[in-house]
Amino acid sequence: MNVRDIGEFGLIARFTSRVAKGAGVEVGIGDDAAATKPAEGALLLSTSDMLVEGIHFDLDTCDPVTLGRKSLSVNLSDIAAMGGEPRHFLLSMAIPPSVSVEFLDDFMYGMLGRAEQFEVSLIGGDTCASSGGLVISITVIGEQFPEKIIRRSGARPGDIICVTGTLGDSALGLEMLKAGERGGPATQKHLDPFPRVREGMALADARIPSAMIDISDGLLADLGHILECSASGARVEWDKIPLSPFFLEKCGPFSDHTMSLALAGGEDYELLFTAPPSRKNEIFQLFASLDTPVAVVGEVTAGSKLSLLAADGGEYDIVKRGFNHFS
Amino acid sequence: MNVRDIGEFGLIARFTSRVAKGAGVEVGIGDDAAATKPAEGALLLSTSDMLVEGIHFDLDTCDPVTLGRKSLSVNLSDIAAMGGEPRHFLLSMAIPPSVSVEFLDDFMYGMLGRAEQFEVSLIGGDTCASSGGLVISITVIGEQFPEKIIRRSGARPGDIICVTGTLGDSALGLEMLKAGERGGPATQKHLDPFPRVREGMALADARIPSAMIDISDGLLADLGHILECSASGARVEWDKIPLSPFFLEKCGPFSDHTMSLALAGGEDYELLFTAPPSRKNEIFQLFASLDTPVAVVGEVTAGSKLSLLAADGGEYDIVKRGFNHFS
Repeated sequence: MNVRDIGEFGLIARFTSRVAKGAGVEVGIGDDAAATKPAEGALLLSTSDMLVEGIHFDLDTCDPVTLGRKSLSVNLSDIAAMGGEPRHFLLSMAIPPSVSVEFLDDFMYGMLGRAEQFEVSLIGGDTCASSGGLVISITVIGEQFPEKIIRRSGARPGDIICVTGTLGDSALGLEMLKAGERGGPATQKHLDPFPRVREGMALADARIPSAMIDISDGLLADLGHILECSASGARVEWDKIPLSPFFLEKCGPFSDHTMSLALAGGEDYELLFTAPPSRKNEIFQLFASLDTPVAVVGEVTAGSKLSLLAADGGEYDIVKRGFNHFS
Repeated sequence: MNVRDIGEFGLIARFTSRVAKGAGVEVGIGDDAAATKPAEGALLLSTSDMLVEGIHFDLDTCDPVTLGRKSLSVNLSDIAAMGGEPRHFLLSMAIPPSVSVEFLDDFMYGMLGRAEQFEVSLIGGDTCASSGGLVISITVIGEQFPEKIIRRSGARPGDIICVTGTLGDSALGLEMLKAGERGGPATQKHLDPFPRVREGMALADARIPSAMIDISDGLLADLGHILECSASGARVEWDKIPLSPFFLEKCGPFSDHTMSLALAGGEDYELLFTAPPSRKNEIFQLFASLDTPVAVVGEVTAGSKLSLLAADGGEYDIVKRGFNHFS
């Protein structure tokens, strides 16, 4: 069945019938705007991310269920990076006439499933025809009390630099997909990242990070954003970068290619944060309780230089090696 | 100069430099999410609208300044239809490589100019490449106290039906643009609608409307939405529909074409509301003070039928005449 067969209102009705009215929703889908009740004293967090067919995804290499999940996940990751609690979201889509209703059903199944995992509810949006490919635009609205919000600008010299999970898997997964390989944890991580919302909120509640960002452009680029906003430099130690067994097996422990994927590949959707060194034990305890890996990969320094150090203390030339997206 | 020449971060920096930090903005553009402070006791209103090149606009017939204005205006109109005050917005764009930086400068000039008129501030969004045409996705966040929010569902039999401004001009303007004609109030209304935010808020403050919607799909279709949500019918009188002198001169006072443009043309972005008949004088006084035309075009009835009456009391066959988009 084609989208044209059921029309815009038919499609909206089809989607809406599956949407449970979430907490704090006074007016949901079906009016000119949604009305929601913010928690008293909290600030509103809002973020938008757009996913474009042919740029961010390829319908040949992704299935609609995981595409639906990922579209929401990358937005949730931005709220996580502020230490916020995601609450509601709006979904707008430009849909080419070739897309089937079954595709959209699966897409919504994936997206609403992820939404349920995080108790986030769909409150509105827009659907229209596309003259090009499929375009997905999501706005997530979250909240957090002002004193708990974690910005990019608070890193101070001497702070330790931490990352969750492992890096490079998503970029490796994308390479594998392009080469026609599917299955395995790397392609999985690329197609279906899991946003670190729980971790971001736990960090915010404990008021541990001095600065935080989610890694979407690669560790060096996103650390670069923190350093720029915090007017600081950093030393990152290559042999402390957390890599998965699968990644190491596929890429080997050391090569320009390995480093490029891990440090500049992007789409990791892990959290990168800085914290005073006095909080180090607390960080490890917190992440042990969450059952999420965390690693200290370096230190914030005075000045503005970002150095990448080898195990023997030597320094890699970031610019020469071509992973200086951060500059 | 091309978008590729300055890159995504260059483009964001270029836009951001022109954005004044608005009221209630704690964290603006440049972090993972924006943080804003909602008014105490108010509900949050949020709405998203997407505009797609080749579907909603054509770069041959619209200039970037008015396109920027319209993109924001159609979203503001949705907040107006709830009786809300728009506060902040997020802008996401998928941009084809052929689009010049100058085009985007003009687009932002138009959009930020309109934003300033309504004291609405840009707090975030996303820019990315497009594999097809230009896609603009906007989310506007507004607020209103719960007791003042106007929904679609409150119309009651006996209520009068009112519309602001005049109808059909935008649809006529679109026809003229397609025929290569430019200039004049109709094309102006189509390309550059002015959202009735002030009127919506004044109605909400006076708690006059029992139901309200903005006319984007045509009077009959949008009245149909109110009637469906309110489980009511309506009688609309054709000779009470407000038409502009220009529209009447171009289309003549009566024809199927005239009626179709005025009742089902769409993109009027006027407010359509219902109210108890006892509030009629107050409505006229309010709109006189706002210097905005308002007209009573019919009455809400029991049942579910939407009738369109001629001056002699006869009834037009809405279905047969093909303007039954509302069904």
